[in-house]
Amino acid sequence: MNVFGKIYTLTSFGESHGAAIGGVIDGCPAGIPVDMEFIQHELDRRKPGQSKITTPRTEADKVELLSGVFKGFTTGTPIGFMVRNADAHSNDYDLIKDTYRPSHADFTYDAKYGFRDYRGGGRSSARETIARVVAGAFAKLALRTKNIEIQAYTSKILDLETDDDYSKYTLSEAENNAIRCPDPMLAEKMIALVEAAKHAGDSLGGTITCVIKGTEPGLGEPVFGKLHAKLGEAMLGINAVKGFDYGSGFDSGNFYGSAHNDLFDTENGAIVSKTNRSGGIQGGISNGADIYFRVAFKPTATVLKPQETVTQTGEKTILEPKGRHDPCVLPRAVPIVEAMAAMVVLDALLLHIARKSF
Amino acid sequence: MNVFGKIYTLTSFGESHGAAIGGVIDGCPAGIPVDMEFIQHELDRRKPGQSKITTPRTEADKVELLSGVFKGFTTGTPIGFMVRNADAHSNDYDLIKDTYRPSHADFTYDAKYGFRDYRGGGRSSARETIARVVAGAFAKLALRTKNIEIQAYTSKILDLETDDDYSKYTLSEAENNAIRCPDPMLAEKMIALVEAAKHAGDSLGGTITCVIKGTEPGLGEPVFGKLHAKLGEAMLGINAVKGFDYGSGFDSGNFYGSAHNDLFDTENGAIVSKTNRSGGIQGGISNGADIYFRVAFKPTATVLKPQETVTQTGEKTILEPKGRHDPCVLPRAVPIVEAMAAMVVLDALLLHIARKSF
Amino acid sequence: MNVFGKIYTLTSFGESHGAAIGGVIDGCPAGIPVDMEFIQHELDRRKPGQSKITTPRTEADKVELLSGVFKGFTTGTPIGFMVRNADAHSNDYDLIKDTYRPSHADFTYDAKYGFRDYRGGGRSSARETIARVVAGAFAKLALRTKNIEIQAYTSKILDLETDDDYSKYTLSEAENNAIRCPDPMLAEKMIALVEAAKHAGDSLGGTITCVIKGTEPGLGEPVFGKLHAKLGEAMLGINAVKGFDYGSGFDSGNFYGSAHNDLFDTENGAIVSKTNRSGGIQGGISNGADIYFRVAFKPTATVLKPQETVTQTGEKTILEPKGRHDPCVLPRAVPIVEAMAAMVVLDALLLHIARKSF
Amino acid sequence: MNVFGKIYTLTSFGESHGAAIGGVIDGCPAGIPVDMEFIQHELDRRKPGQSKITTPRTEADKVELLSGVFKGFTTGTPIGFMVRNADAHSNDYDLIKDTYRPSHADFTYDAKYGFRDYRGGGRSSARETIARVVAGAFAKLALRTKNIEIQAYTSKILDLETDDDYSKYTLSEAENNAIRCPDPMLAEKMIALVEAAKHAGDSLGGTITCVIKGTEPGLGEPVFGKLHAKLGEAMLGINAVKGFDYGSGFDSGNFYGSAHNDLFDTENGAIVSKTNRSGGIQGGISNGADIYFRVAFKPTATVLKPQETVTQTGEKTILEPKGRHDPCVLPRAVPIVEAMAAMVVLDALLLHIARKSF
Repeated sequence: MNVFGKIYTLTSFGESHGAAIGGVIDGCPAGIPVDMEFIQHELDRRKPGQSKITTPRTEADKVELLSGVFKGFTTGTPIGFMVRNADAHSNDYDLIKDTYRPSHADFTYDAKYGFRDYRGGGRSSARETIARVVAGAFAKLALRTKNIEIQAYTSKILDLETDDDYSKYTLSEAENNAIRCPDPMLAEKMIALVEAAKHAGDSLGGTITCVIKGTEPGLGEPVFGKLHAKLGEAMLGINAVKGFDYGSGFDSGNFYGSAHNDLFDTENGAIVSKTNRSGGIQGGISNGADIYFRVAFKPTATVLKPQETVTQTGEKTILEPKGRHDPCVLPRAVPIVEAMAAMVVLDALLLHIARKSF
Repeated sequence: MNVFGKIYTLTSFGESHGAAIGGVIDGCPAGIPVDMEFIQHELDRRKPGQSKITTPRTEADKVELLSGVFKGFTTGTPIGFMVRNADAHSNDYDLIKDTYRPSHADFTYDAKYGFRDYRGGGRSSARETIARVVAGAFAKLALRTKNIEIQAYTSKILDLETDDDYSKYTLSEAENNAIRCPDPMLAEKMIALVEAAKHAGDSLGGTITCVIKGTEPGLGEPVFGKLHAKLGEAMLGINAVKGFDYGSGFDSGNFYGSAHNDLFDTENGAIVSKTNRSGGIQGGISNGADIYFRVAFKPTATVLKPQETVTQTGEKTILEPKGRHDPCVLPRAVPIVEAMAAMVVLDALLLHIARKSF
Repeated sequence: MNVFGKIYTLTSFGESHGAAIGGVIDGCPAGIPVDMEFIQHELDRRKPGQSKITTPRTEADKVELLSGVFKGFTTGTPIGFMVRNADAHSNDYDLIKDTYRPSHADFTYDAKYGFRDYRGGGRSSARETIARVVAGAFAKLALRTKNIEIQAYTSKILDLETDDDYSKYTLSEAENNAIRCPDPMLAEKMIALVEAAKHAGDSLGGTITCVIKGTEPGLGEPVFGKLHAKLGEAMLGINAVKGFDYGSGFDSGNFYGSAHNDLFDTENGAIVSKTNRSGGIQGGISNGADIYFRVAFKPTATVLKPQETVTQTGEKTILEPKGRHDPCVLPRAVPIVEAMAAMVVLDALLLHIARKSF
Repeated sequence: MNVFGKIYTLTSFGESHGAAIGGVIDGCPAGIPVDMEFIQHELDRRKPGQSKITTPRTEADKVELLSGVFKGFTTGTPIGFMVRNADAHSNDYDLIKDTYRPSHADFTYDAKYGFRDYRGGGRSSARETIARVVAGAFAKLALRTKNIEIQAYTSKILDLETDDDYSKYTLSEAENNAIRCPDPMLAEKMIALVEAAKHAGDSLGGTITCVIKGTEPGLGEPVFGKLHAKLGEAMLGINAVKGFDYGSGFDSGNFYGSAHNDLFDTENGAIVSKTNRSGGIQGGISNGADIYFRVAFKPTATVLKPQETVTQTGEKTILEPKGRHDPCVLPRAVPIVEAMAAMVVLDALLLHIARKSF
């Protein structure tokens, strides 16, 4: 399934070393001003080679819109778009066409489909997320008209961790350093860790936190369409993601209920809760408070060290290090997390608007 | 949205104190033997009043099948079913019809729908999960014919935690104690904790782990239909769930890639991985190893202690303790986790079978 | 697939001689006043035994709501409902359990599912449409708040046909006779034809026309969600339907384009078309004019005459006449056509509202 | 909604005078040999300028595959593709940007979206069907491996009509003349009619018949996913289509049931029906006989004659003839009908295979 969403949908296509990566956005409201500079900027945040701690693969990643925009506005019809692949180096991959890279999807693609486009991981490459960033950028442009803002950041690498209370930071500060952490001092340390891993031919994972501000109460469908369930599905669909929690998350189990509950209060006449362990969502529905959640990423599976593995026919072999790799995907994943969140929130908002109109 | 799944779907209905809780299973393959005793047994595992650490609400929770089964077999047509609500005590809830219970969904339902069925939490009550357990039981019966088995258990309450290596336990042992933990000694301690919380009018959360055995490689759709993303969405849709991770999960961030990767090997001619930090899923597709994941539950929001809150009109008030509550939802949530997992796996299996037939 | 619709959905269940027929309505806006008398009245229009030209099977067809309605209003949560089956006469059907009734679905159900609930046609019985009428009644109640009205009527039996220009009739007049034709003189002749067929143990088909008034311009999604394509799918999903056309329909091929086009004009400042061969839909989108379409029904497959056929094992046999039958389904199908139309229009309206809010 | 299908899906994008028309095929089984010559041939059958009775717009309509195919086979991942627009003549359309063309979608697009890409009809142009023909060609390649063949043809223009009994013709003969009618004599007359209309600046509609051979019994989902309902929805989604019927269709109302029923018989040990008024579908499920249906097309709305109309602001005006037009869309619609049918049948087949595997 390469279609995401219910009303605002993205259908994604493309392989790492095929002709292009792209997609079709369906259900975008008409009349949204299309800020191409913003869209390209979002892609640039995801682009390889943007800093010394990302893969040196060089791709311009210039997006071409193929439909759905006219005279600078969305028309309400599907927005087709693509990014041509350039720096392919496909021959590098002949070595691995018969060899299963550990913790990659080579083996499972073969099991599922009988064969695979092995060049650069084919469809399983994170290059596919280009489509998500574009669709997320359009969603952000639509949400901007409703004053909804989304900001993600790197919150943990090994034992380096930001404070749980994100209000201590200016979140946009994250955009000022290579690891995308809003704490500049911590960011430096994180970058040092990642650089060291890079020089050792190794890799690191970590945690991204995302904060959504400005949603009105009422978004999300109870039972199977809970807002956090849709956010979780969206995040778990990003390459290398291993976990998701929101609000007090996994930590909630360390509390007694009487200490964990968010007590209601009023503020300027509006009903609010004194604390926000609920993460802005109660019973699957937004309550108007900030929505925040964490996304756990495993260390990049590609490492530049020899690894034991087997071939397609089951012969033992050693995978020799070769090529380029991202020592840590987190900085480039920050805009992807935001993009998926934007799509989920816009979709929920559209559904909510439809329902409440009666 | 009260429809779950793509090919094997459950449409769920019902409020805590309405006429009935029920649902419609659509897309169940024809010819599956319907073991009613097993289905009722699954419901009994979820039933209130089953032990001293669950709510004393007494409900027989007898399921009535309304269609889709003929002469003991599924017919391939939709299976309508329901469980009548009995022990309603609706008057208990008049007190809360205008008062927002902290960390419940009262406020957000009002925000979304304008008003709500306030009796027992209405649609936001976990009584709704009856429908999931029934649909999960049918899915389990179908999966049984393919030798796929699913077992969940309580793995953590406060600082009491089972070993990460679940192979150390006989998982079915979990069914022999009230907390559903496969380690009998630990179970006793957990039960004591929960009883203490109950007597204090307080509540606890914790973590459930689920293990799926017997899936063939190839289940799950890459990109937006990743098997773990669908499992995550399913789990996050369960009441009180705050987080989900699979395989090494949030812990994966503590590893370097070279240490984290699952190296491939062969075993009896089959390609296997030496370790299973991938949790049986690579690139969103099952690899044939055990699938395992964790689900984090917050402490029950209902506590029998006075709590500050506000009324619908924003007046401050104290919510006085009253009625019954589950001091810890985990033991009753174990069959719900399994049920949702069974639906996800069956759905993925049906889709996989369709695709690979060409 | 037993789920219909995208935002306003019906999941239907039930067999002719099972415990009950019912369904779940999901996505109904909250706060719609639930006029139970109206809902039951809609069911009564579909009920067997309502006149001398319908089957004498006697069923009260009293609907029981199981959820989703509180204090007389929809709550926004799923509306579960059912009608118990009463007058089962299941033994009548033992004769046909091994014999394929001509032009029925016995053979194809066996081919698809391996076996079938043969009692009264099981799932293939038009008794299933009870669920549609209930879901359609709720949709009508929602549409009523937007001043959208739907009226269907029998427009053709053999060579007896109403005028193509439906504005010559008071359409509600159709409810005053047993065949549901708005022309009282023609109705009498149609009834006589059907009675004659009934006495001969034979059956008749015909055409139903449906008119939808009050839709604003803009409903319907171009390309794959064209309003008339959704209406067509809905109508073709009704038992015994063989064809659908809208506006000038099949007749459009008898015109040259210059004569067929609907020329635009203005009326009280609004843009209108002078003629309405478009049937109120252009490019798949409503234009504000009346939407009208025709639905072709084949003659009832059940006839009370001996028919050649074969058994499950392929032996030739004669199917002897037995039991009850509807000599013509049209009068009872009129409310079903309206119900399906109401669901399609409400669904399109909800989607349109969501989109245009930006 | 620009996504069609459930398991085998097409997401379509593109405007008549935008950068490109294209789409994404999702859910295509892996390992299907990709015959590019065949795919291009299907596009050529739809191409403008292919004969003297089609529009002279010249477009190469060369398809470029962007993903999902590797070493000549489908990989199971989404197939992105596009056709660049060349012969745009966009300036021709400045004249109509404020003027509503009669029986076109200009007015309704404005009503729905607030504005529109008016160049060449934008998204409402039949140029969009390029995406369908490509997706249909892939579906045909998949169906070919299961020996399912689909052939459509022009069966009626004004009063020129082929025999209802299509078995009298060699259907592939239709490809040998410009109108795509399998009766060469009739074809000549039809072509003469269309040429006369063209010279008069006028247009014609008509009927296309489609025959599907080789489907096994069991395809189609009863109730809301009836095979003919899905076919109907697909056909009614094609530009200019006004009606759909299958088997005896609208004509069925002229029969008594006893004369209309298809009596069962056996043939070479298989259960067959003596006649096929059911059109190969009973109860919404294929019975193994030929599936056949008719699709009614209105005359092309574009005529080269002056027409009364109004502007966006409601001022009366005369639309002066200008530009190019298809005097009759039928010959170019034949491959589109086949393409949509192929997608529906493949989708039903995939679903059927999934279900029957238990």
